[in-house]
Amino acid sequence: MTLTGQMFLAGDRVLGSGGEVHATDPRTGATLEPAYRYGTAADVDRAATAAGQAFRTFRRTDPKVRAEFLDAIADKLTALTEQVVERVQAETGIAEARVRGELARTTNQLRLFAGVVRDGSHTGVRIEPALPERTPLPRPDLRQRKVPIGPVAVFGASNFPLAFSVAGGDTASALAAGCPVVVKAHSSHPGTSELVAGAIAEAVAEHGLPAGVFSMLYGEGREVGTALVAHPAIAAVGFTGSRSGGTALVAVANARPRPIPVYAEMSSINPVVLLPGALAERGSAIGAAFVGSLTMGVGQLCTNPGLVFAVESAGLQDFLEGAGAAVRESAAAPMLSATICSAYDRGVQALRENPAVEEVATGLDDESISARGVTHLFTTTGEAFLADESLSAEVFGASSLVVRVPDAALLPELLERLEGQLTATVHLAEQDVPAAEELLPVLEEKVGRIVVNGWPTGVDVGAAIVHGGPFPATSDGRSTSVGTLAIDRFLRPVAYQDVPAALLPAEVRGE
Amino acid sequence: MTLTGQMFLAGDRVLGSGGEVHATDPRTGATLEPAYRYGTAADVDRAATAAGQAFRTFRRTDPKVRAEFLDAIADKLTALTEQVVERVQAETGIAEARVRGELARTTNQLRLFAGVVRDGSHTGVRIEPALPERTPLPRPDLRQRKVPIGPVAVFGASNFPLAFSVAGGDTASALAAGCPVVVKAHSSHPGTSELVAGAIAEAVAEHGLPAGVFSMLYGEGREVGTALVAHPAIAAVGFTGSRSGGTALVAVANARPRPIPVYAEMSSINPVVLLPGALAERGSAIGAAFVGSLTMGVGQLCTNPGLVFAVESAGLQDFLEGAGAAVRESAAAPMLSATICSAYDRGVQALRENPAVEEVATGLDDESISARGVTHLFTTTGEAFLADESLSAEVFGASSLVVRVPDAALLPELLERLEGQLTATVHLAEQDVPAAEELLPVLEEKVGRIVVNGWPTGVDVGAAIVHGGPFPATSDGRSTSVGTLAIDRFLRPVAYQDVPAALLPAEVRGE
Repeated sequence: MTLTGQMFLAGDRVLGSGGEVHATDPRTGATLEPAYRYGTAADVDRAATAAGQAFRTFRRTDPKVRAEFLDAIADKLTALTEQVVERVQAETGIAEARVRGELARTTNQLRLFAGVVRDGSHTGVRIEPALPERTPLPRPDLRQRKVPIGPVAVFGASNFPLAFSVAGGDTASALAAGCPVVVKAHSSHPGTSELVAGAIAEAVAEHGLPAGVFSMLYGEGREVGTALVAHPAIAAVGFTGSRSGGTALVAVANARPRPIPVYAEMSSINPVVLLPGALAERGSAIGAAFVGSLTMGVGQLCTNPGLVFAVESAGLQDFLEGAGAAVRESAAAPMLSATICSAYDRGVQALRENPAVEEVATGLDDESISARGVTHLFTTTGEAFLADESLSAEVFGASSLVVRVPDAALLPELLERLEGQLTATVHLAEQDVPAAEELLPVLEEKVGRIVVNGWPTGVDVGAAIVHGGPFPATSDGRSTSVGTLAIDRFLRPVAYQDVPAALLPAEVRGE
Repeated sequence: MTLTGQMFLAGDRVLGSGGEVHATDPRTGATLEPAYRYGTAADVDRAATAAGQAFRTFRRTDPKVRAEFLDAIADKLTALTEQVVERVQAETGIAEARVRGELARTTNQLRLFAGVVRDGSHTGVRIEPALPERTPLPRPDLRQRKVPIGPVAVFGASNFPLAFSVAGGDTASALAAGCPVVVKAHSSHPGTSELVAGAIAEAVAEHGLPAGVFSMLYGEGREVGTALVAHPAIAAVGFTGSRSGGTALVAVANARPRPIPVYAEMSSINPVVLLPGALAERGSAIGAAFVGSLTMGVGQLCTNPGLVFAVESAGLQDFLEGAGAAVRESAAAPMLSATICSAYDRGVQALRENPAVEEVATGLDDESISARGVTHLFTTTGEAFLADESLSAEVFGASSLVVRVPDAALLPELLERLEGQLTATVHLAEQDVPAAEELLPVLEEKVGRIVVNGWPTGVDVGAAIVHGGPFPATSDGRSTSVGTLAIDRFLRPVAYQDVPAALLPAEVRGE
């Protein structure tokens, strides 16, 4: 597929009339061709209106057709593998193996949702046949199912140019639900977005679906995104990105004449708790494995372990030595963009300048990389952590802060102080179980996923995963943006009372 | 139980320090004893803080205990039947038979949720055992369940002093979920609220639950309600009332540092569509039955049929004559309060003054009733309806507007113009099925419940009901406030990854 710099508006390729943008290779700082042009509010109107018009037809497609459509997108992306792998690396600096893994995750995710559509249980059918003899009042025939909510606006994320972007989890779950999708692509990987959007648009056409089922736009600043969320035809929003970006979109959605739900995954520092038994048993190994998780994706994963509560105990020194050694051996690597890299450097600088914080270890530098992330490991005391809110701020990148906690009994209070999180992790040995029992209820109220003796990075995409959590981890803690339950975000229940079989939708006919 | 005028703050009976209020008998205008005193923001803080403290204990109670607790509330309310029936009539003017029915609905609803808790399927358990041999990566053990969201603020409704009030559907579903509840009672039925709150508080104490599981306050204007929704310990809100009241609470919830979900059921005119075949077959009978639904609860039910789209056809005159005759025979009856009565009279007056509207029939008046509702039936043309937005405004009471639609083909456009609704009803005969097929998709996108050849009033409380709908019918169309699915509003998913059996909650242990 030749890159053209164009957007996809309901089946048409359209060159934007807004400002021009080029992707930049964060490894070298080189400008990448072709030029992309931003869209305008008029383009948003065209895409969203077409999505609104396509909705009724699309939502009533046979589930088999919708499943085949999702599988076809996966097939087309697989066919584009080599071009996608090359372009993603150039636009994001993500290492080849991780790009291949992310592409596989993306196509698996599309196929997973094809399976969800075929299975059909997401429609939550409930049937209560009439009870004409019931007293004091007869019961009518009542049947319930969930129907799609309407066209969904999806915002591509910078850190997962495939799995949380144009054909990522939000798009896959929305299309599976029967909702047309309008994507605002992330400006840092426009070429990747064009390749993926081309695959979706082809699949739309080949399956005889209305062209408005899918559109993708580029947009500068917040103009296009705001217009999209404010558009009357849009019924819900999926977003992965910064807290400021997410809360801005929530504000736009709430200010509409008809407010709509926003599923924004925003911010998480993913606390890790190290209990004394685990530290004593395998402190050094935990330290090395921790740095593996910390440096995965150059620390730019939503589930990156940015905060460690380690109980002062015999094994803590082993942990710090194990982690320190691994940090010192960790190579510098390209970050996603120069902007993200500068923000990371500022976050690290603030920790360095904090008198209550000590730098334990620093990773290798590599001046040949333009926007590079160097690993950093800091420590502080429990007292200092409680006294200084800035120490629980997210530093997006491979930096983590180890809080030395004098006594495991203080852990609940420390955890209570945190805002909502995507994940929390506990490392424990047999002897730590009583202490862990005290922590679990706190964590259940604070996070979306609890991990024991593992690491929060590496989200398994299936039926039981939760990638969500209380605010500000997400704007809506009642949901997950990864895994099959994600489809529930784009559904709402409808009841049919005494509707004759001839008029009932197939799912609730009960045949 | 002797009425004292006090609030219930986490097990303590407390006389408010705010202004004094008496209930008024809308039948006679008489002032009812005792005096009630409004609470303050300090009382809200006490109740909400106690709810926050009670949450962790309450949410981890054995489901059996929580179910028995709900059953006990029902038993206690049943034991109070005669006192409740008398007080509700005095405070609201609702006829005795309807009060008895509403009390039965309320206790049945509590028992229904006891059954939901015992059954346990609302926790949505999903278990994916580890696959250590999976390639390219092993799968961890992942288990998902839904946990309660936290303390819930419930606002009592004026029109259902039992079923949507202190121990109504919001309270029952929140307690069933494991969420403590703080109720702001509706000021027009403080005595009923005290009786019911007393029953709940007793059940809390007798089951050894923390006292903070339940509180109830009185509040003047919006001060107490606003403080409650803004309180950091509150995690969700259930509300049934006016559109202005509901949207005000949503704004408070969104402006919090940590925004919370608001489930506000607000406004609905519940369109009824009469197709030509049905009109020809049984126009007169439909007219009479329609007035039965229109006048139920003196037109003050959320599902009251306030708008009728009737296709011009041979049977339309029969319908209007049948309905007109029934309206003219319908007795005046006390409305819930003088305030609601004045608003109703203003709504009726506006229709009377509209030159495009004709009054078809007027019900009987009865000057012996203080705040009385008289039935009114109006007609207008489809053209006038499309030209004048004010004709689709809700008139809360037993007034309905019949829109004469020249052709069934115009119905989809007319229905598209409406805002979101709780219900839509279609009357059809065999020959109307093709026309109904065109309507159904429109209605599915617009309403929460579709009724055929019946009436929207008389909501059956079970597993398949939906009492909800797109904005402004509710503030969150992804939910229902009636029926077992209502519990889902107060739950959020959590995943457990590789958590050892000793630490896993019972539901996900998979034993």
